[in-house]
Amino acid sequence: MKEKQVKEITNRDDDFAKWYTDVCIKAELVDYSSVKGCMIIRPYGYAIWENIQSELDKRFKETNHKNVYMPMFIPETLLNKEKDHVEGFAPEVAWVTHGGEEELTERLCVRPTSETLFCEHYANVVKSYRDLPKLYNQWCSVVRWEKTTRPFLRSREFLWQEGHTVHATAEEAKEETLKMLNIYANFCEDVLAIPVVCGEKTEKEKFAGAENTYTIEALMHNGVALQSGTSHYFGDNFSRAFNMTYLDRDNRVQYMYQTSWGMTTRIIGAVIMTHGDDHGLVLPPNIAPVKVNIVPIGKNDSSVLGASYQIAKELKLLNISCEVDDSEKSPGYRFAESEMRGIPVRIEIGPRDLENGTCVLVRRDTLEKREVEISNVTEEIIKLLLDIQQNMYLRAKLRRDDMTKTVSNFDEMKYLAETENGFIRANWCGSRECEDKIKEEAGITSRCIPFDENFEGGKCVYCGKEATKLVYWGKQY
Amino acid sequence: MKEKQVKEITNRDDDFAKWYTDVCIKAELVDYSSVKGCMIIRPYGYAIWENIQSELDKRFKETNHKNVYMPMFIPETLLNKEKDHVEGFAPEVAWVTHGGEEELTERLCVRPTSETLFCEHYANVVKSYRDLPKLYNQWCSVVRWEKTTRPFLRSREFLWQEGHTVHATAEEAKEETLKMLNIYANFCEDVLAIPVVCGEKTEKEKFAGAENTYTIEALMHNGVALQSGTSHYFGDNFSRAFNMTYLDRDNRVQYMYQTSWGMTTRIIGAVIMTHGDDHGLVLPPNIAPVKVNIVPIGKNDSSVLGASYQIAKELKLLNISCEVDDSEKSPGYRFAESEMRGIPVRIEIGPRDLENGTCVLVRRDTLEKREVEISNVTEEIIKLLLDIQQNMYLRAKLRRDDMTKTVSNFDEMKYLAETENGFIRANWCGSRECEDKIKEEAGITSRCIPFDENFEGGKCVYCGKEATKLVYWGKQY
Repeated sequence: MKEKQVKEITNRDDDFAKWYTDVCIKAELVDYSSVKGCMIIRPYGYAIWENIQSELDKRFKETNHKNVYMPMFIPETLLNKEKDHVEGFAPEVAWVTHGGEEELTERLCVRPTSETLFCEHYANVVKSYRDLPKLYNQWCSVVRWEKTTRPFLRSREFLWQEGHTVHATAEEAKEETLKMLNIYANFCEDVLAIPVVCGEKTEKEKFAGAENTYTIEALMHNGVALQSGTSHYFGDNFSRAFNMTYLDRDNRVQYMYQTSWGMTTRIIGAVIMTHGDDHGLVLPPNIAPVKVNIVPIGKNDSSVLGASYQIAKELKLLNISCEVDDSEKSPGYRFAESEMRGIPVRIEIGPRDLENGTCVLVRRDTLEKREVEISNVTEEIIKLLLDIQQNMYLRAKLRRDDMTKTVSNFDEMKYLAETENGFIRANWCGSRECEDKIKEEAGITSRCIPFDENFEGGKCVYCGKEATKLVYWGKQY
Repeated sequence: MKEKQVKEITNRDDDFAKWYTDVCIKAELVDYSSVKGCMIIRPYGYAIWENIQSELDKRFKETNHKNVYMPMFIPETLLNKEKDHVEGFAPEVAWVTHGGEEELTERLCVRPTSETLFCEHYANVVKSYRDLPKLYNQWCSVVRWEKTTRPFLRSREFLWQEGHTVHATAEEAKEETLKMLNIYANFCEDVLAIPVVCGEKTEKEKFAGAENTYTIEALMHNGVALQSGTSHYFGDNFSRAFNMTYLDRDNRVQYMYQTSWGMTTRIIGAVIMTHGDDHGLVLPPNIAPVKVNIVPIGKNDSSVLGASYQIAKELKLLNISCEVDDSEKSPGYRFAESEMRGIPVRIEIGPRDLENGTCVLVRRDTLEKREVEISNVTEEIIKLLLDIQQNMYLRAKLRRDDMTKTVSNFDEMKYLAETENGFIRANWCGSRECEDKIKEEAGITSRCIPFDENFEGGKCVYCGKEATKLVYWGKQY
C-alpha cells in the first residue's frame, strides 16, 4: 500500500514541474476550481498560510505596523494617476464593468496591488509632520490576469500582505524599506528554513513606479530562482502624482516619502520546492500545522491506543500540535500519508514496543528511525524538532551554495546556463543592453545585486567593459 | 477644548443616523474611499475586527471547523445552478467582463457569498461517508452592489466569515445550523455585550436557497433591529442542483445535507449603535483594542510620566492592552479623545495625585470617576474591566427589554410602530399575505420567530384568524 501511494507522485528528478503539482494535489494543499487560474486553498494548505500570517503579522506589529483594509476595487482614473504604475499593471487586471443590472459609468479594476488606494488615503489623512510616519499593512487577495498559471506560484488570484508606509524624509523611508526586507529574510531563514540572497533589483526588473526594489531570492531544489518577497522605495514619485503633502515643523508644504513591501502565498510554493522529496512535502517544524503524527499499530489494541493518546496529551500540554492517526488504513498507508503531508516527526508504536516501554521516532527530513523510551518521548521530540528545523536550513543552504557558481566571461555563463540550473554570479557594467542580451542569448535574468558581497571590480560578463556591479543571474519562476 | 471636540459629534438623540456616521469617522474607524459604497477600514476599526475574528475563529476551531480559501470569482453558469439562489443574488452582483485586454468568454461575478463554489468543491472531494462531515469556514471579503450604503451597516464590499458544511444526515446538518447560531449568540452576549433574540426567519425573509434560516436579532439604541448573524439549513437543495453525492455504509448513493452561516463587519455597527453615547464610541472591554488609556497631567513632569509608564508596564505584564497618551495636547482634549475612541478605562494622573500616591480611574460606560491608590491600581482595573463588561450587557438588556412590547391587535401594532421604535411581539397566522400587509401598513417586518418563548395560542395580529406563531416585528437596518 505504501508503495502504491508513493508511486502516485512523479519522481522529483524525472519531472520537477509534475512532481510539484502532484505534491500540491496529493498533500491536499490545493484543488482546482472551475474558475480558470484560480485555486482553492484546502484546509491543510490554508493552515500553513495561517501560520505564515501569524509569524509575519507578529513581526509587523512588533515594528509598530498597523493593519487596515482598503477596497478591493480601484477606479480606472485612480489607477491611471501614476504613469509607470499603470503601464506595469493595466495589461493584467480584471475589469468590473457592471454592478447588478447596470453598466458602470467608470470601470473598476480588481486590485492587482493597492498603492493607488493607499496614496489617496494618505493624502486625505496626513496633515502635518505629527501624523508621520504612517505604517500600514493589509492582508487580502489580489488579482492579476496571468496567462499561464500554477498552484501558489502564479495564479490569477492570490493571497498576500501588502505594507504601505509614508514618511517625512527619504532617509526614514529607505530605512523602512530595508528593515522590512530584513524581516522577510529572517522570517524565511528562521521559520521556513529557506536561505535567501538579499539584494537590489536592476532598473529593468524593479516594480512599476518604484525608485528602488529590493528582493529576497531563494533557490529551489531544481536550481530555479524564486523571488520570495520584495520591498520598494518610491521616493516621492507617487506623492507628486497623488499630491500627498504635509506641513513640516516650519509650516512648509512637503511631499511624503513612501515604501511598499509584500509577501504572498507563492512562498508556500517555495517551501514545497526547497524541501520536498519523492515522498511528498517536507515541512519545517516552525511552520507545520501538525508537528507530530502518532501511528498506533495493531488493530484494536486498547493499550497501544491508550499510550498513543497519552503521548498526544503530553505533547499538546507543551503546545506541540499533534495528531493520532487511528484510522482503519494499514500502517504502511498511514506512514506514507504522514510523509506525503510532510509532518516533521512520526511516532510509530505497536504492542511489542509498548512491552519494552519504547516507541519509534521517524524524522521526516532524513526519514531516519530511532527507538526511544516512552518515558522520554516528549523531551526527545522537543530536541528532534529543533534539530530538524536546523538541519533543513543547513541542508538547503549547502545545496544553494553548491548551485551558486561564479563566471568571468559570457561563454562560461552561456555554457553554465545551458547545462545546469542555479545562481550564476557575474559582473555587469550596468547597461540595459547587456542585461537584455544575456536574457536573449543565455536565457537567464538578473535576480539581484547582492547586499552581502563586496563588488571587487572586473569586467562586464557580456560586453567586457568596466563592470560596476556583481549580479546574481538565473532562471526564475 | 474638550467641549469643542465633543461638540463635533451630533447628539445621539437629535439625529441618530448622523451621530452614527460622526462616530465612525471621528473615532477613526473608517474613512470614505473614491470607490462609491466601499469603505476604508482604518487601524482602529480593523483592530476591533481582528479581535472579533480571533474570538470567533477560536470558537470555530474548538468545534472542529477548518479554514479554507475559495476563489473570489464565480462563473455565471455556476451561480445559475440553483434557481432560488441566483434569483436572490444576481440583481446585486458585480460582473467582471474583461481580463487584461481581452473580453472574457464567460463573465464572472465577484462572490456575493460562496455557496456555489463550496458545493462544487464538496462534490469533488467527498466520495464516501468516511469523508463526512466537512466543516469548512472562510474569512474573506464579498461584494453586493447595494444602492444606498452606510459604513459597516451596508457597503458594497464587506468583510465576513462564511461557514459551509456538509453532512451525511439531515439531523446532523440541522444540529450544526443551531450549534453555530448559538456560538454567534454567546459571542454577542459574552464578548460584545449585546443581548440578542435567537429565532427563525419566516419563509419570506429567509436566505435565497435555504430551507430554514435562523438569526440573532439585536436592538440598537434607537430601537431599530439589526440582524447580527445568520445560520442556514439547506437540506439537500443545493446537493441536488450540484450533484453532491456520497456512498453510504451500504454503498448506496446519497445526497449530502448542507448548512451555511455568516457574521460580517456589520457587527461593528451593532457595537457602535448598542453602546455608543454623545461622547462617542463605548467599547466592551472584551473587544477593545486598547483597554486602558493613561493620561499624565502636568507638562514635562518626569515623575508623573515615570509613574504612568510604570503602570502601563504592569498592565502589559497582565496582558491588558494599554496606551500612555503623553502628547502635547491639553488634558481635556486627551480625555475627550479617549472617550471618543471608547477606551473602557482612563487613568488620570497628575503631580498632586502622585504626591498622595493615588490616581483617578474613569470608566467609559458611566463616565464615573474614582480615586484609587497607585499601589492597588492593577487589581482595581482588573475588577473594573469585568464590571464594565457586565454592566454594559445588563444595561443593553434592560433597554432592549424595555423597548420590547407585546400587542394583540393591528391598531395597537400600527400605533406603536408609528410612535416608537423597538421590538413588537405579536401573534401571526403564518400567511405571507398578512406579513406583506403588516409591512405595507405599519412599516415593520418580521424579525424572527423566537426560540426561547412559548407560543401560547391566540389570534393573528392582522387577520384575526387562529395564529400559529409568536413573531418579533420591527424596523430594521
